[in-house]
Amino acid sequence: MSELGEIALLERIARRLPPARSGEVWSGDDAAFFEAPSDRLLFTTDAMVEGVDFSLDYCSGEDIGWKVVAINASDVAAMGGRPAQALATLTLAGKSLVSVVDDVVTGMIAAAQRWGIDLVGGDISEGSALAVSIALLGAPLGDVPILRSGASPGEAICVTGSLGGAAGGLMILERRTARSDAATEPLIARQLRPAARVEEAARLVGAGVTAMIDVSDGLAVDLGHLTDSSGVGCRIDEQSIPVDPQLGWLSEELKGEVDPLTTAITGGEDFELLFTIAPGAVEEAQSALGELGTPVARIGNTSESGRMIGDNDLEEWRSRGWQHLLSR
Amino acid sequence: MSELGEIALLERIARRLPPARSGEVWSGDDAAFFEAPSDRLLFTTDAMVEGVDFSLDYCSGEDIGWKVVAINASDVAAMGGRPAQALATLTLAGKSLVSVVDDVVTGMIAAAQRWGIDLVGGDISEGSALAVSIALLGAPLGDVPILRSGASPGEAICVTGSLGGAAGGLMILERRTARSDAATEPLIARQLRPAARVEEAARLVGAGVTAMIDVSDGLAVDLGHLTDSSGVGCRIDEQSIPVDPQLGWLSEELKGEVDPLTTAITGGEDFELLFTIAPGAVEEAQSALGELGTPVARIGNTSESGRMIGDNDLEEWRSRGWQHLLSR
Repeated sequence: MSELGEIALLERIARRLPPARSGEVWSGDDAAFFEAPSDRLLFTTDAMVEGVDFSLDYCSGEDIGWKVVAINASDVAAMGGRPAQALATLTLAGKSLVSVVDDVVTGMIAAAQRWGIDLVGGDISEGSALAVSIALLGAPLGDVPILRSGASPGEAICVTGSLGGAAGGLMILERRTARSDAATEPLIARQLRPAARVEEAARLVGAGVTAMIDVSDGLAVDLGHLTDSSGVGCRIDEQSIPVDPQLGWLSEELKGEVDPLTTAITGGEDFELLFTIAPGAVEEAQSALGELGTPVARIGNTSESGRMIGDNDLEEWRSRGWQHLLSR
Repeated sequence: MSELGEIALLERIARRLPPARSGEVWSGDDAAFFEAPSDRLLFTTDAMVEGVDFSLDYCSGEDIGWKVVAINASDVAAMGGRPAQALATLTLAGKSLVSVVDDVVTGMIAAAQRWGIDLVGGDISEGSALAVSIALLGAPLGDVPILRSGASPGEAICVTGSLGGAAGGLMILERRTARSDAATEPLIARQLRPAARVEEAARLVGAGVTAMIDVSDGLAVDLGHLTDSSGVGCRIDEQSIPVDPQLGWLSEELKGEVDPLTTAITGGEDFELLFTIAPGAVEEAQSALGELGTPVARIGNTSESGRMIGDNDLEEWRSRGWQHLLSR
């Protein structure tokens, strides 16, 4: 991309973005300038690279733009925060620049609007493959953020929504399984257009969650992070894990090759919230998220030591099968 | 990179970073958490991609890590701000991961320390080429940031330091010109280890600059940005442009192929500060930056209309020669 090509492209994008708030400067100068969303900040970044995190064979530019905003918003939500301002970095391959950029920006704008994020600028580079990343600022909703390390023994372990759907969607997209639209669309949407549980996180902060993480690498891996950080064990009841209901269909379609429960435990990218909370507060959390239409499943308890999902150690789950489904 | 490979690599990096300030959370959770550097923020991001912005043939990982922090710090400085917190994004090719990462991180840590930046976390992805980017937060030093758009007709146009050295350094590195270390090293250092004019920017805010931009794309291009944004013209005296003194040597070495003045006007990546200021305040700016050992050259004046460098229109400079030296 030539110098002037980059400038023209940036101007093209800037014209499509919502205008800066009064007194603020978004794109067009050396840096963006705006009111801090809080006196204490959350700050995260996450990238998606073509050929590693997605394939243009089955993703549109809009999907990619949406998802990179969603996965960052999910990280801020998992800290008990509200996402606020984002910068985008696009690395573009030399061919078909403009249409890809337009589509990625369309997806970013849609996701930013969905979660109340100001897209305040960004940077465009040339590269050998398409890559997108977002740097996102947020504000903690409580006095302190919700860390992975806040759990104590004897608390309830809960998860929002359902698990395994994004992995099922990826399987459909990669194998080009016989399509039955009403059945495949929900799984594909889980993979390509994930939702960040932003409103849910705000209510969970109010309900008194003690530790939280978003399920990006799969329940087994992320539960490992939470229990490692908190220095606690866990006992998970397999039968309480909210398996994505569409996985039953997919398992039949693939003649049993897919085990729904295993997919729910090891599949990544559902971006549900996994959290711990006092056992007496579970109902309040369920009620608060029920108003949003989001179920909360209590899947087990923290313990002093030992980490079990059903009769298997967490490490066995982490190391068995489905590894190709783990995101990066 | 495998999921567990990424986690191990992130832990390896986290161990090398300075510890989080008390009450803050840097790497290791879903997002970093820290005190806002100000109630109004500056926010910028800039990426460097292998094969486009640098070549591993002549750059070390340390050079790359240093430079990506410096170019972002320079953007915050050019807004009249102090850089504060940064997140790093690394995209790594599959081979020789660990040593490259270690070197890039070493360079980032050194540059972050140099300019008082807290490196609060980041993200690692796999890709087909090495790419590094930084998202940087900063605090404006004055009541308002210094924009490109603040210049009025009749003001002095000034630039810090000297111009053209980084382009000269790139020429040496790309052509592998016969090396004469004492002569080549300063030019190569300008290209590989740029300085961000952070302390200079703080003093210039105190001296009352009206508009400012860092010279990343070359004097002609960046003066074009400043005058476009401000809606002013300019008259630049060629003889006042602070040409990097080492370019005379390089011109002789390359038998006149390199014109020092043209290189100073069109070469990119010097990261000097180009600013406008009331004519009566130039001496104060020169005195304030003189204490830092940084010269300030008054190279011309803003005008109502017309944009000239010497006898040539700015557009002619932008379109002639040396295009390969323009960064991206």
